[in-house]
Amino acid sequence: MAGRIEAKLAALGIELPPPPAPIASYVGFNVVETAADLGRRGALVVISGQIPLVAGKLAQAGKVGAGVTVEQGQALARLCFINLMAQLKAACGGDLDKVKRVVRLGGFIAAGPDFTQHALVMNGASDLAVEVFGDAGKHARTTIGVPSLPADAPVEVEGMFEIG
Amino acid sequence: MAGRIEAKLAALGIELPPPPAPIASYVGFNVVETAADLGRRGALVVISGQIPLVAGKLAQAGKVGAGVTVEQGQALARLCFINLMAQLKAACGGDLDKVKRVVRLGGFIAAGPDFTQHALVMNGASDLAVEVFGDAGKHARTTIGVPSLPADAPVEVEGMFEIG
Amino acid sequence: MAGRIEAKLAALGIELPPPPAPIASYVGFNVVETAADLGRRGALVVISGQIPLVAGKLAQAGKVGAGVTVEQGQALARLCFINLMAQLKAACGGDLDKVKRVVRLGGFIAAGPDFTQHALVMNGASDLAVEVFGDAGKHARTTIGVPSLPADAPVEVEGMFEIG
Repeated sequence: MAGRIEAKLAALGIELPPPPAPIASYVGFNVVETAADLGRRGALVVISGQIPLVAGKLAQAGKVGAGVTVEQGQALARLCFINLMAQLKAACGGDLDKVKRVVRLGGFIAAGPDFTQHALVMNGASDLAVEVFGDAGKHARTTIGVPSLPADAPVEVEGMFEIG
Repeated sequence: MAGRIEAKLAALGIELPPPPAPIASYVGFNVVETAADLGRRGALVVISGQIPLVAGKLAQAGKVGAGVTVEQGQALARLCFINLMAQLKAACGGDLDKVKRVVRLGGFIAAGPDFTQHALVMNGASDLAVEVFGDAGKHARTTIGVPSLPADAPVEVEGMFEIG
Repeated sequence: MAGRIEAKLAALGIELPPPPAPIASYVGFNVVETAADLGRRGALVVISGQIPLVAGKLAQAGKVGAGVTVEQGQALARLCFINLMAQLKAACGGDLDKVKRVVRLGGFIAAGPDFTQHALVMNGASDLAVEVFGDAGKHARTTIGVPSLPADAPVEVEGMFEIG
């Protein structure tokens, strides 16, 4: 039987891909145990920066504000968050109902010196976090511009989550 | 009665603004409980990247090294840390004496390829951390250049703190 | 008697430098206690961004893809990880066998808008993490391009580790 968060994903028409297999010397995520409540285990999940891959291929390449529109950038940031959730699901042993909090998202927007709408682009990821996880999806966030990203991705998003 | 840190802020002539209200889907900070000492609660406070807003308006826009001087950049980094402290105070339920450590600051300096004085700029935030919190203010730090920041801010600073 | 990790470093011909002394208001690392296993202490070590200094001097300056080759960039990323290990050793009180996990590496590659091989450059750090720490060296990773870094460094790497 699907859990609460899986039901929400289904209602949004989102199917999580399998998380990309570990490549080279790094992995999709790591889990650090904390003691979120004394006497009950908790953990931080630290997830690698995700680019907007769909079935292993970059959905769109280029720079936001120069070839990639803000609206397209938002859709790409949303894809990054879907890929974060795919990793997160693996970290939860398949049960996304274990997610207690989206602690932090870091957003990297490939853009030139004159670009100013980084926050709007990153909302594509942030809004989906709250659509899926409700109040538990409200996160601390840092968004910055970058000249270039791996594979010419226009957006990259990393995340830290609390599970328990 | 004001606490030790509030007294220090007053001596420095710093009045903390109210923390910016949550906008859109992200929030100013999140708190992750750890067990800093077994048997005694502790927590990590993860705070969103802060730009040099004063009363909701950017104090200065542009790039450091091209329109914004290093000295101006330092003052802006200091303002970012004041905004971090405003968020931190809210995370502490108003009592900054609960701060055990400034764990990490991340500094983002909007600058061109030829700029090299990122560390000097970021000292504006780092020096204030130690002025206010003493040895507990000594932090790990990562400082990088970026082509652009939200709203054309010249500096952005994010932070992780330990409270208990 | 040297530990397991020290023996591995010796086999790789790596001699860790003394960690750079704290400069200004920031420090090389901070340690946050968690309770990695209830009843047994654990801690997160948060280490400042490291540039490829050798004996206090930058091994090479410039931008990757424009003056600095990808291969040189890899060697510089490897140097950054050596400097991270020097800090980590100090955080462990000298005993690197206390390292439980390389939790996360953040890689910053100074490069222009057209550069796409950030991941290859960062492998210089990631591969060494696994050479030295084995499975415990497999880490979450975020790699981005930046226009400039402190002191015109071509690469900067920050890290989070778990010790216990």
